Amino acid sequence: MTRPQVLVIGCGFGGIEAVRSLSKADVEITLVDRTNHHLFQPLLYQVATAGLSAPSVSAPIRHALRREMQRGNLTILQAEVTGIDTAARQAVLEDGTTLPWDHLIVAAGATHSYFGHDDWAAHAPGLKTLADAFKVRARVIGAFEQAERCTEADDREPWMTFVVIGAGPTGVEMAGTMVEIAHHTLPREFRRIDSRRARVVLLEGSDRVLGAFVPALSARARAQLERLEVDVRTGCKVTAIDAEGVSYEVREGDAVRTVRLPSRTVIWAAGVAASPLGRALAASTGATLDRAGRVVVEPDLGVPGHPDIAVIGDLAAAKSHPARGEPTPVPGVSPGAKQMGRAAAANLLRRLRGEATVPFRYIDYGNLATVGRRAAVVDLAVPPFGALRFSGLAAWLFWLFAHIYFLIGFRNRFFVMVDWAWAYWTYQRHARVVAEPMPAPPRSDS
Amino acid sequence: MTRPQVLVIGCGFGGIEAVRSLSKADVEITLVDRTNHHLFQPLLYQVATAGLSAPSVSAPIRHALRREMQRGNLTILQAEVTGIDTAARQAVLEDGTTLPWDHLIVAAGATHSYFGHDDWAAHAPGLKTLADAFKVRARVIGAFEQAERCTEADDREPWMTFVVIGAGPTGVEMAGTMVEIAHHTLPREFRRIDSRRARVVLLEGSDRVLGAFVPALSARARAQLERLEVDVRTGCKVTAIDAEGVSYEVREGDAVRTVRLPSRTVIWAAGVAASPLGRALAASTGATLDRAGRVVVEPDLGVPGHPDIAVIGDLAAAKSHPARGEPTPVPGVSPGAKQMGRAAAANLLRRLRGEATVPFRYIDYGNLATVGRRAAVVDLAVPPFGALRFSGLAAWLFWLFAHIYFLIGFRNRFFVMVDWAWAYWTYQRHARVVAEPMPAPPRSDS
Repeated sequence: MTRPQVLVIGCGFGGIEAVRSLSKADVEITLVDRTNHHLFQPLLYQVATAGLSAPSVSAPIRHALRREMQRGNLTILQAEVTGIDTAARQAVLEDGTTLPWDHLIVAAGATHSYFGHDDWAAHAPGLKTLADAFKVRARVIGAFEQAERCTEADDREPWMTFVVIGAGPTGVEMAGTMVEIAHHTLPREFRRIDSRRARVVLLEGSDRVLGAFVPALSARARAQLERLEVDVRTGCKVTAIDAEGVSYEVREGDAVRTVRLPSRTVIWAAGVAASPLGRALAASTGATLDRAGRVVVEPDLGVPGHPDIAVIGDLAAAKSHPARGEPTPVPGVSPGAKQMGRAAAANLLRRLRGEATVPFRYIDYGNLATVGRRAAVVDLAVPPFGALRFSGLAAWLFWLFAHIYFLIGFRNRFFVMVDWAWAYWTYQRHARVVAEPMPAPPRSDS
Repeated sequence: MTRPQVLVIGCGFGGIEAVRSLSKADVEITLVDRTNHHLFQPLLYQVATAGLSAPSVSAPIRHALRREMQRGNLTILQAEVTGIDTAARQAVLEDGTTLPWDHLIVAAGATHSYFGHDDWAAHAPGLKTLADAFKVRARVIGAFEQAERCTEADDREPWMTFVVIGAGPTGVEMAGTMVEIAHHTLPREFRRIDSRRARVVLLEGSDRVLGAFVPALSARARAQLERLEVDVRTGCKVTAIDAEGVSYEVREGDAVRTVRLPSRTVIWAAGVAASPLGRALAASTGATLDRAGRVVVEPDLGVPGHPDIAVIGDLAAAKSHPARGEPTPVPGVSPGAKQMGRAAAANLLRRLRGEATVPFRYIDYGNLATVGRRAAVVDLAVPPFGALRFSGLAAWLFWLFAHIYFLIGFRNRFFVMVDWAWAYWTYQRHARVVAEPMPAPPRSDS
């Protein structure tokens, strides 16, 4: 009898945990991802801001799963899944070939959403992949270079103005770190500009930063950002982004004022949309998508009417089913994806044994975000005592060690630790080299 | 009285040394480079073969020259020089603006030469810049991924065949390291392929490898390569490179046999041509170019008839003028460029003082090249005793420490040392992550 064939699409936090859980079972696993690496996305902003090199925040998938590989039932393929054929039970790859499955786990993650303004993408890169991070790094480092080339002060200002759109964890981290670069890393390295005069503006549509935290921690994060001299502007609705800046609307009493912010470096940290594979899956299975394009799944993470297909991670609109109380949405964070990966694998093995599946229950350990040097906010769930909330230096140290602890592979952990210790004492950011072309000034009369 | 304005083009080994020598003098210096980093080119092949990350072999120019920057007479600009206007004494930049000079030092380096076959570039990337190294890394790592995807053995072979063209130091290092990846890093990480069955072919036009060394060391390098299982083929004239492989001619007695080598991964390490700026300079000054496009300079490194312009490094066809004996060509190695940088700066200062310039004299400390793990050849000049030549493990250790010693900046030195120690013991190459797209199979019926 042949072993059941499990296909896992995507090697993020969800996919890799699913494979780990399944590899000891009597199943044949194929893992397919369009890149060759597992990315530790929570630290991607450090690559974008030249604090870490790409190999420090990513591990070759084959290396991360080398122990699982030894069990002899895992095939890893680097390929892009472009379609899902539910009737034939096979995934279609970019070269037209197919991969069959008996059981499918889709963990294809999320991408940026520009809220219908796809033309903004060229002017405001987001931060999801290593290639994105290199692009942002080239823009940020290159902006100071362009400012140094300017002979007129008026031309210089837009190069010295950095705008981050979206004050979630990534936006807050980007803004805090860019100030650090301008104030601590670059001073004295330029002749015509004073890098400390660079302005970092953080634009947020809602009325507070870090909306996933309790309001008190949001307020503290904002205070920390402002102490670092980030120009935080909440309640701002972005209406246009082009090569020369950002326009946004802000409500003032009954009136709406439009503000124009000239800037040559705009970073997009606002919208997240599920992978386009969600649409393919919905078309093939009749599943419902939520507003962000995520697949609405059953309590056991299966696709309604298709128990052989599970969706996990950022692609899933999943709910947590606690022992008591109402189901609650699972937040789009890495612990959520990891727990879904393990749960989907466990339910798959239950089905193979002829047992009933179990509803997914998300265990929330809390939430943490860094703001900048020695600044962070932490909101830990400590049942049964409730929540432990703190900010500032203690929170920053907690964030530091938590992130190093969860980094994949001993080598990455060790090297990131050394890199950070070095950067902390010297204020240097070693990964400031840029292989990409410089940002080109827009063709204009200026 | 305003200080004389010195313009230095290029921040390789020559340019950076010239700036260092000049920064203590009463001159105003502008250094212009199209990238933001000084690249330690002798270790670039390690980035291409995933052994080191880009920030380990390159330093931001502003950081490398931060001490010189403090003296207040140095401006660094990231810009591309596209033309040289000798009459107006100014360099033209890519955006049409100009940089004036009283004294010009051109250190624009070299690029690849495909010997008139520019269409080969798409199929056989060379290795001069960080972007090149990332491209090669994506090809090499991606080839094993594509081989794993193949379901037919016949399709797999070209992905498992790696061809390096040119057996100079870079070609020999690339070939030796690619074998190490196939034999030591990747085994057990694939399911369908055995990476140890990968074939690395090193093609050389002349009759020996490492032609800059004495024949006895060439022979030892070849023996070391063959012990590592590199397929070394000398006397091979490449006649065609396309998406599916390489064709070359080899002389057999009086006959010429044409050989076709199917391969999807071809690396170009054969030809070097001077920067196109050499042609611009020749057009503007009437200087002569040699066959490789290098500017033929005076004994003091000045351009004939233009004592205000010096050319150094890989762009210069310079001769060394020893105390006794005939002038000899300066080899295209980093010590040559560094010494020319210091000599050009010294001659410039002599001219400012109204003194006569001094002919350049190259001090040859010897030549070393690594072949692979624990294999290298060293040819040291030890006057007045003659030469000290050795190979094997001792040569490899010598190579290792020499390269770490000359790496720019303490941080790079330290981190490369740790990376190498790690790689040596674990056989792992930590920089195996690829942000570039996978190599696409050529459109064909296979």
